Amino acid sequence: MDTSQAMKASALDLSVSQWFNAKNAITLEQLRGRIIVIGAFQMLCPTCVSQSIPQLIKLHQAFPEDRLIVIGLHTVFEHHQAMQSHALEAFIHEYRIRFPVGVDTHERDDPVPRTMRSLQLRGTPSTIVLDAAGDIRLHRFGHVDDFSLGFAIGQLLQTVPTSERDASEGVGRTMQSECDVNACSITNS
Amino acid sequence: MDTSQAMKASALDLSVSQWFNAKNAITLEQLRGRIIVIGAFQMLCPTCVSQSIPQLIKLHQAFPEDRLIVIGLHTVFEHHQAMQSHALEAFIHEYRIRFPVGVDTHERDDPVPRTMRSLQLRGTPSTIVLDAAGDIRLHRFGHVDDFSLGFAIGQLLQTVPTSERDASEGVGRTMQSECDVNACSITNS
Amino acid sequence: MDTSQAMKASALDLSVSQWFNAKNAITLEQLRGRIIVIGAFQMLCPTCVSQSIPQLIKLHQAFPEDRLIVIGLHTVFEHHQAMQSHALEAFIHEYRIRFPVGVDTHERDDPVPRTMRSLQLRGTPSTIVLDAAGDIRLHRFGHVDDFSLGFAIGQLLQTVPTSERDASEGVGRTMQSECDVNACSITNS
Amino acid sequence: MDTSQAMKASALDLSVSQWFNAKNAITLEQLRGRIIVIGAFQMLCPTCVSQSIPQLIKLHQAFPEDRLIVIGLHTVFEHHQAMQSHALEAFIHEYRIRFPVGVDTHERDDPVPRTMRSLQLRGTPSTIVLDAAGDIRLHRFGHVDDFSLGFAIGQLLQTVPTSERDASEGVGRTMQSECDVNACSITNS
Repeated sequence: MDTSQAMKASALDLSVSQWFNAKNAITLEQLRGRIIVIGAFQMLCPTCVSQSIPQLIKLHQAFPEDRLIVIGLHTVFEHHQAMQSHALEAFIHEYRIRFPVGVDTHERDDPVPRTMRSLQLRGTPSTIVLDAAGDIRLHRFGHVDDFSLGFAIGQLLQTVPTSERDASEGVGRTMQSECDVNACSITNS
Repeated sequence: MDTSQAMKASALDLSVSQWFNAKNAITLEQLRGRIIVIGAFQMLCPTCVSQSIPQLIKLHQAFPEDRLIVIGLHTVFEHHQAMQSHALEAFIHEYRIRFPVGVDTHERDDPVPRTMRSLQLRGTPSTIVLDAAGDIRLHRFGHVDDFSLGFAIGQLLQTVPTSERDASEGVGRTMQSECDVNACSITNS
Repeated sequence: MDTSQAMKASALDLSVSQWFNAKNAITLEQLRGRIIVIGAFQMLCPTCVSQSIPQLIKLHQAFPEDRLIVIGLHTVFEHHQAMQSHALEAFIHEYRIRFPVGVDTHERDDPVPRTMRSLQLRGTPSTIVLDAAGDIRLHRFGHVDDFSLGFAIGQLLQTVPTSERDASEGVGRTMQSECDVNACSITNS
Repeated sequence: MDTSQAMKASALDLSVSQWFNAKNAITLEQLRGRIIVIGAFQMLCPTCVSQSIPQLIKLHQAFPEDRLIVIGLHTVFEHHQAMQSHALEAFIHEYRIRFPVGVDTHERDDPVPRTMRSLQLRGTPSTIVLDAAGDIRLHRFGHVDDFSLGFAIGQLLQTVPTSERDASEGVGRTMQSECDVNACSITNS
């Protein structure tokens, strides 16, 4: 991405009226140095529920929080009555969401909440990835497939986890083979 | 990945007795400068057929060949009679595989083919990713999920495709909203 | 099923405080002569949302309503505040549910609603299938897989739709063959 | 299905040159009294491998053999060289197929095998269901979804397995609730 096109960190405004799964209010500034993945969703948005929330949960489990942090942002722009805080709290409980989730702040008369406007989101689900400097590196409306999200994060996190590489033992001459649901393997004897 | 641990390019030996979808024999050396993804498979390995081959096909379609090249390697170590060249040719046709596929060379009396030994593969499917310098950066036995493969390739291909970033139009005040199978969107009026 | 074990129609008590997608209140008695499939769900129950609701939608589309009728029953026994009528209405809209959905009646102080008790449901999702006489023929807690549900309904609806049988043209001598994503077919020439 | 349209048992000709997973040759006549599901496939037909074979395996496990029997029929009409008996044997081993599989007989010069012609199959996968009298009740080209197959078999097997009906214990007054990956349940205390 051309750096000149990147939305600057200073332009970002995370305006949250209530946090879940967080002891204190979270600001993007205090997270500088880490990759931040913001998942904007609505609890009654079908694609958010079936695809994006499960993806964010996996992402949250895959990386240490001091390297990459996942933040859910509840950006309600429709059915406001049905998606209030007590409903979101039940949703977070039922879907076993453990990462921080912030409720995007509403200003009176505006159906679109404040952070959703400042981040220029077109709807839900939306995924925003910020690099360690706080610049936006991915800004996508609609579900991002796993490969594309992995690719985007791979570009920002440069050290390969050592677990990524299998120890490759030598393969002996006498062997048997067997397939199971994961693979067909050579068994040395 | 610690560079000192990386398997060196010079150690790599791609020994192929027959190529499909390739005009000439392919050597890894001639591909220096590109990312190379080698998918080792057997046409009768269930996980290869259901998961790895479809993933390699998507990968082949997603990147220009001068940046990243996908190579299939048919590493038969069992049921040799059932997976000969004419059977592989039918398999490639039926599964609509368009990337180059090489048949790993067998030496007499050794059920494990030559490249499979030199790459120290433990079975199928296996995925090997080489960087532009020809060093191995991912070496995995069993199906690699889309996120992990995207992550590994993202670390090696540093330029974000411009298509990755949506043009983010401003969001007006008066709006309607609608959900479809992909997302819930704001419609400006 | 042993008829003596079947729960009798007279024992059934569909107690609904509000209907959606229905002009008038629905009683099981008025539906005698048709197969009735009751899907008990909660809008914040993950398995209901990901599996049962889509299955009920497909079922609703597959059969004419004078043969088989699908009824959703919102049996809230937890998070009552989060799953009130206005929230359910938004849920029905977002998930494009077109079949009738009734809200199971709550009595003061009892977290479990009335029909859920009278039908002896253990939780959500639950699926109840009644035959044309109004007797319960399937009474299952947890998602029912498509095959089992099809099997249960097949036992109650005895006429095979004519569309089920392909016109089987003769297969000529000269032919070509081609596979696509659905099948490999013989093409007569 | 109009009985007059049903293909009569006497017209059926199961011509098999070799059986796998069967001690003796199988004739349809000796199976009268049971439901017979014939799955016609080719080992290099992608939809057969990804959808029909797994469905036949589940079907084989779901019913006792004296009620319903699953028979695989290898109806090769293309790539004959690649799908010979030794290849099929390896395929049956790798995909863990335990039901009987017959190789449809080829006559010289005819690419379409004999049973495929007599059953008037249009390609693979094809599913044929015969009732206890040996009459064809389902004759379908292309993958049959689980619901439709369950429905067809449900119409032919009239006794509901007792396991289909849950024992429905009464639901007490004091309770807790919990959701897991399968369902949300009421826990009596």
